Amino acid sequence: MRPTPPPRVILEPLVRAALTEDLGLAGDLTTNAIVPPQAETHALFVARKAGVVAGLDLAALTFQLVDPALTFSAAKPDGAKVTAGETIAFVRGKAASILVAERVALNFLGHLSGVATATASFVAAVEGHKAQIVCTRKTTPGLRAVEKYAVRAGGGYNHRFGLNDAVLIKDNHIAIAGGVAEALRRAKRNVGHLVKIEVEVDSLGQLHEALTEAPDAILLDNMSPAQLAEAVEIVDGRAITEASGGVSLDNVAEIAKSGVDLISIGWLTHSAPVLDIGLDFPA
Amino acid sequence: MRPTPPPRVILEPLVRAALTEDLGLAGDLTTNAIVPPQAETHALFVARKAGVVAGLDLAALTFQLVDPALTFSAAKPDGAKVTAGETIAFVRGKAASILVAERVALNFLGHLSGVATATASFVAAVEGHKAQIVCTRKTTPGLRAVEKYAVRAGGGYNHRFGLNDAVLIKDNHIAIAGGVAEALRRAKRNVGHLVKIEVEVDSLGQLHEALTEAPDAILLDNMSPAQLAEAVEIVDGRAITEASGGVSLDNVAEIAKSGVDLISIGWLTHSAPVLDIGLDFPA
Amino acid sequence: MRPTPPPRVILEPLVRAALTEDLGLAGDLTTNAIVPPQAETHALFVARKAGVVAGLDLAALTFQLVDPALTFSAAKPDGAKVTAGETIAFVRGKAASILVAERVALNFLGHLSGVATATASFVAAVEGHKAQIVCTRKTTPGLRAVEKYAVRAGGGYNHRFGLNDAVLIKDNHIAIAGGVAEALRRAKRNVGHLVKIEVEVDSLGQLHEALTEAPDAILLDNMSPAQLAEAVEIVDGRAITEASGGVSLDNVAEIAKSGVDLISIGWLTHSAPVLDIGLDFPA
Amino acid sequence: MRPTPPPRVILEPLVRAALTEDLGLAGDLTTNAIVPPQAETHALFVARKAGVVAGLDLAALTFQLVDPALTFSAAKPDGAKVTAGETIAFVRGKAASILVAERVALNFLGHLSGVATATASFVAAVEGHKAQIVCTRKTTPGLRAVEKYAVRAGGGYNHRFGLNDAVLIKDNHIAIAGGVAEALRRAKRNVGHLVKIEVEVDSLGQLHEALTEAPDAILLDNMSPAQLAEAVEIVDGRAITEASGGVSLDNVAEIAKSGVDLISIGWLTHSAPVLDIGLDFPA
Amino acid sequence: MRPTPPPRVILEPLVRAALTEDLGLAGDLTTNAIVPPQAETHALFVARKAGVVAGLDLAALTFQLVDPALTFSAAKPDGAKVTAGETIAFVRGKAASILVAERVALNFLGHLSGVATATASFVAAVEGHKAQIVCTRKTTPGLRAVEKYAVRAGGGYNHRFGLNDAVLIKDNHIAIAGGVAEALRRAKRNVGHLVKIEVEVDSLGQLHEALTEAPDAILLDNMSPAQLAEAVEIVDGRAITEASGGVSLDNVAEIAKSGVDLISIGWLTHSAPVLDIGLDFPA
Amino acid sequence: MRPTPPPRVILEPLVRAALTEDLGLAGDLTTNAIVPPQAETHALFVARKAGVVAGLDLAALTFQLVDPALTFSAAKPDGAKVTAGETIAFVRGKAASILVAERVALNFLGHLSGVATATASFVAAVEGHKAQIVCTRKTTPGLRAVEKYAVRAGGGYNHRFGLNDAVLIKDNHIAIAGGVAEALRRAKRNVGHLVKIEVEVDSLGQLHEALTEAPDAILLDNMSPAQLAEAVEIVDGRAITEASGGVSLDNVAEIAKSGVDLISIGWLTHSAPVLDIGLDFPA
Repeated sequence: MRPTPPPRVILEPLVRAALTEDLGLAGDLTTNAIVPPQAETHALFVARKAGVVAGLDLAALTFQLVDPALTFSAAKPDGAKVTAGETIAFVRGKAASILVAERVALNFLGHLSGVATATASFVAAVEGHKAQIVCTRKTTPGLRAVEKYAVRAGGGYNHRFGLNDAVLIKDNHIAIAGGVAEALRRAKRNVGHLVKIEVEVDSLGQLHEALTEAPDAILLDNMSPAQLAEAVEIVDGRAITEASGGVSLDNVAEIAKSGVDLISIGWLTHSAPVLDIGLDFPA
Repeated sequence: MRPTPPPRVILEPLVRAALTEDLGLAGDLTTNAIVPPQAETHALFVARKAGVVAGLDLAALTFQLVDPALTFSAAKPDGAKVTAGETIAFVRGKAASILVAERVALNFLGHLSGVATATASFVAAVEGHKAQIVCTRKTTPGLRAVEKYAVRAGGGYNHRFGLNDAVLIKDNHIAIAGGVAEALRRAKRNVGHLVKIEVEVDSLGQLHEALTEAPDAILLDNMSPAQLAEAVEIVDGRAITEASGGVSLDNVAEIAKSGVDLISIGWLTHSAPVLDIGLDFPA
Repeated sequence: MRPTPPPRVILEPLVRAALTEDLGLAGDLTTNAIVPPQAETHALFVARKAGVVAGLDLAALTFQLVDPALTFSAAKPDGAKVTAGETIAFVRGKAASILVAERVALNFLGHLSGVATATASFVAAVEGHKAQIVCTRKTTPGLRAVEKYAVRAGGGYNHRFGLNDAVLIKDNHIAIAGGVAEALRRAKRNVGHLVKIEVEVDSLGQLHEALTEAPDAILLDNMSPAQLAEAVEIVDGRAITEASGGVSLDNVAEIAKSGVDLISIGWLTHSAPVLDIGLDFPA
Repeated sequence: MRPTPPPRVILEPLVRAALTEDLGLAGDLTTNAIVPPQAETHALFVARKAGVVAGLDLAALTFQLVDPALTFSAAKPDGAKVTAGETIAFVRGKAASILVAERVALNFLGHLSGVATATASFVAAVEGHKAQIVCTRKTTPGLRAVEKYAVRAGGGYNHRFGLNDAVLIKDNHIAIAGGVAEALRRAKRNVGHLVKIEVEVDSLGQLHEALTEAPDAILLDNMSPAQLAEAVEIVDGRAITEASGGVSLDNVAEIAKSGVDLISIGWLTHSAPVLDIGLDFPA
Repeated sequence: MRPTPPPRVILEPLVRAALTEDLGLAGDLTTNAIVPPQAETHALFVARKAGVVAGLDLAALTFQLVDPALTFSAAKPDGAKVTAGETIAFVRGKAASILVAERVALNFLGHLSGVATATASFVAAVEGHKAQIVCTRKTTPGLRAVEKYAVRAGGGYNHRFGLNDAVLIKDNHIAIAGGVAEALRRAKRNVGHLVKIEVEVDSLGQLHEALTEAPDAILLDNMSPAQLAEAVEIVDGRAITEASGGVSLDNVAEIAKSGVDLISIGWLTHSAPVLDIGLDFPA
Repeated sequence: MRPTPPPRVILEPLVRAALTEDLGLAGDLTTNAIVPPQAETHALFVARKAGVVAGLDLAALTFQLVDPALTFSAAKPDGAKVTAGETIAFVRGKAASILVAERVALNFLGHLSGVATATASFVAAVEGHKAQIVCTRKTTPGLRAVEKYAVRAGGGYNHRFGLNDAVLIKDNHIAIAGGVAEALRRAKRNVGHLVKIEVEVDSLGQLHEALTEAPDAILLDNMSPAQLAEAVEIVDGRAITEASGGVSLDNVAEIAKSGVDLISIGWLTHSAPVLDIGLDFPA
């Protein structure tokens, strides 16, 4: 099933902010000075590199908010793989409007396609293993909803969206509670029935302690593939297992081999480079 | 001179949006369930890798908006080089407040320090040449003001902040105007006296045509170092020269050798990886 | 553990909106016309009826945003039971400021204390049973975060905060999916590892079908206490059980006797009357 | 004349806030996981109890902001009486869109219809008397404009919308001014020519004093029906008379019999239960 | 009694918008480039022309939002008359902060003092007559609350603040209703008890018709002083009389002589020139 | 070339704020009480005085946001000269909607046409000279983008839009830097390559010092026409020259005769009276 993009009420403030940021009070000085207001044109969004597309709704909305008379149509849906040179989308209408919106549309599309492409490369690297690739809360401030969506477009899965939708007990919580088991007991006692509880452990000792309180999931932090495999064996299906820390394309397959259910990677959302996409006008 | 961070009226909406995004309606389920409200602690922001710091005002503001009673103090100013393991800043107060704000503060600090670090590496690579490293409008939507600041913190310079503060005539404007010279003439006729005009050229033919209209700056797009050197010679100080396109750490020194005044790099703001920074609590 | 109120970044926009709504452009015509600007006074928030207090942070913030020089102090914490005539809080400072803020502070405090009081009455009614009282998404538009908090202050628990933090499969989803089991399979296949899944069933047939897919929780919709008891027996601990529909103070104990884990009540947030609280000035 | 709903510029921020609140960053996890994006359906808003409808513009706007392609049409106008089982409105389009918007639309419609229904029951109870039923500033924070409208839809009238559109001198203003007459004199001296002045009195002594300054209206606070009748006789048409305090369906007719012009009831907006309305999909 | 300025929750969004508008994304390029961050200074707001001051709270808030460490103190209160060269206020602290905030503070102060000064000149011109000078809804978009306040600071009075706080029946309403009397009857039937009703008439015929329905106030539109005097005689105290249309400093005294209660002047808020105020730094 | 109005994303918040300001919570009491909801009409925007039109997009947007079914069409474009009595635009649709939007539309149109008309009068006064008429940052808070546009509509040019898009070194910067030349050197060292630098001088001594650092533009502050002519001769084309201070319609031609390139006038945006425009309904 294709991922569902966030609804327009979520996207619209992002696009308005990005346009306001780029236009300032004076608007597009260059276009206003040079381009006749009635001139019409069309243009193609073209991938300069191979990758996975995400963010077409944001690009479409950018053009629509600048000029509702522009027509924008996608040649590929979000989540599609594209090769270098392939056309992603098409826009037609007033040249001035297209030029005003171009950079904002490209910034969204490039950034989110970058996240989707990075995700897809990790998903491909663990093919044949059961491990799902998941993102984290290490997202770009302001863009979490759409970056999480881009991860899904790339074939990955989402971890928590925020502090508010699941419990993830980390080392500092454990230290304050005085131990893994006590932290888990407090969490169970205090949260609602639809809140899952995950706990981070960094040793097999902590893992054994955690299992006594039956968490929904266990984050195995910074363990080697060998340790992960041992941890998975110990857990033995009693909780979801997640590997985290130091994951790269070089080691992700080996990590997946350990049998963990999930591999979480902050890099997908905080450091993935953009997918290079250009807007080509007719020669 | 150290770069001046954007004033608080600009930063505050960014921090409020990031906190709202992370807290949702339910707030920090984990901390609320586990951490006693009166528990106090302190913690250190520590660089896990070497780099250049940027974003301390945003981190400070994050803690302040979560809990005005927290004290945050920077050990290093924005723009400082740090080595792996070095302390960047210090926060003290209620443990629950620190944990609630931690991820948002780190997301700002990691992202902007990443931009500053990337910039500094390019600045270092062109040392001894006159070329300045400049960023572009290829920024992360919503974060342009702070990413541009991070570039300055890394020793770079800012190109346009938006469509509104200078003219940059690109290939599509030229095509619509019917030529480089005509596009320049339209720009000169129509913009205010404090607006500078830059024009993009992709051949020496276009360069000669551009010079007939005396632009303030000329963007030499996707030229080889040899072509750039020839272009610089042709311009001969009559305009600022900017190299753009395909710049990497591998080729930036060679590009600088051409004698251009500026080298612009979209990668600094759209694809620089975060600087890995952690928040360490007392053991 | 006392419930943690939503952080100030969540509360502040609510208070600003409420003050703006009450003040319009002209401000408090009455106070401006009658009260000398320098006059000082103090006043007591007093419960006119017995109940449970909630919303003190909102009241405090209302006074602070009107006049930072006012001092507000709570005599009771949120979640405390008060009797008729008991003092809840105290405010001191400029009389004009107190009068300007009074109604907004009371509207928040009365509404949320009403929700907390209603919740506490249901919690008391099921004392001795294991059933937790939970609220729903049937909240007052704009106030969900604080109404959910008031439920916790009254001793209740929160169900989903929104469509975004858990799956709740209802009759319409089931109809579209073509059956309970298929709907559950789709949910499991498509959601992240920290998302719990609850399904609504309205017959024992649907219940049996649901159990084949091992949901985290089952909402038993509009069943009689006898049916609920039978359902609880069938589930036999394999899922959390939730009774919903037509719950009132008259029948809630009988429902609890069925052994369900949760009883959800939309009335707590959509229809609970305010707790009558007044602001008394010195005679 | 049917009441005019607030214009869209006033309603739109309320609907956007309610949708944002319900959707969070992740959107509707259940619908996204289960409902095929292209599936179409229709559904009926049906009253489960008898009452008076209000809020159809908010419901319509909710669907439109989620998906402009949905068609929503009202079967009854705001202000109409409906019986249990009667259809109120109709929506058709993508099933996923309808399910995403359903709860927010119902929350608005149920809340405002509850206010309208409560108002209508008081209006019916005083039929044959001249007394108008009016609401107060004891409204739900953020919803005053629409709750006041719902009161009108129920056949009631509006008191002040805020501190800004009329003077209402209360006990505390009187205490600070040093007396009813002095407070009235200050008000008259200081407010504009289109601002009416009402004063609250709690004894016949205060009433006589108030009449010496010819206020536009007099609020008779917490008086018995007998006292009210005497007060009305004393006023003898020289001011509008308003009864307030402790009004219920049990005593409102008796209060009306006293001959007062207005009976104000905070309960209409702060404590009226929702009207139970459901959204029925085809079987 | 000095007019009460709008509360901070109303002023703050205006100041934030004005600062954001002036600072853009890049901030104060000049100050950042030239002024050492630690340099301290002080400066005086000095009237360059005689006038009446208004807007000091906005100026104070501007400095505070730019840098909370600045100290701002007013030498004159709003509403005070100043002569050319007189000091109005004083600010001390970081030079860079003062320079960043200077223009926004001056723009507010100059504009509002201009409105106050214009008002005061009309108030002075009608001295000895009973006529009050009132403003209209012809205000600068976004600034109505503060412009209305500036009118009060200048000794004037406020007409309606908006469409929402009183009825003013104009020629177009009359045309649609089919006559002055019918329009008044509809208004009386439909509005709340605290809403005053004013009607505009442009002939003595209309005036007589209006009086049959006992409006609270009558706007005598575009009548000559002689007609106004006749109208006042006809009304004979049965309604407030307001002269409107074509009022200038040249004719206002003559208009006032007619005996009208109010003279309304759109020019006060839509066309009054600024009061020239400068910010003087130490030589 | 006609000036390009700011894009809709910039205009829309201004119009929403203005409508919210005028409508409050209660909306248009008069229209709601008197005008039948289905009544249709049309109306003409007519100039009452001769002038230059600006702001039609804002007027159109006002009507559209109140009622998308209204049709608004301009008879003249922004920048057109109109004579007294000439029709500017036309609106047709529901009478109630037109009346609700009327004042806000007129306030925008009158204010911006006032700015355009004032500008055009100065432009006409310097006809035959090379001097351009430019505006300043002395704008009405919140309206800078549209006031700057209105200046262009009147045939003028824009100076800086904010502190962020050019350097303008003023007396206080010079004092802090210790001299004109040092201030210019700091500016050149610290700003980006697309930022122009202007410096204010108030004597020929300062002018000579400024020229040693080759600024882009020089503001000649408060000089007599004779001094200006001498300054222009000294500059001799090495920088753009701008006259500023005390400019009026009486002296602007004489100033232009000095040969300066620009004449800047704060009055255009801070004190220009509105152009009187009315909305005429059919008799």
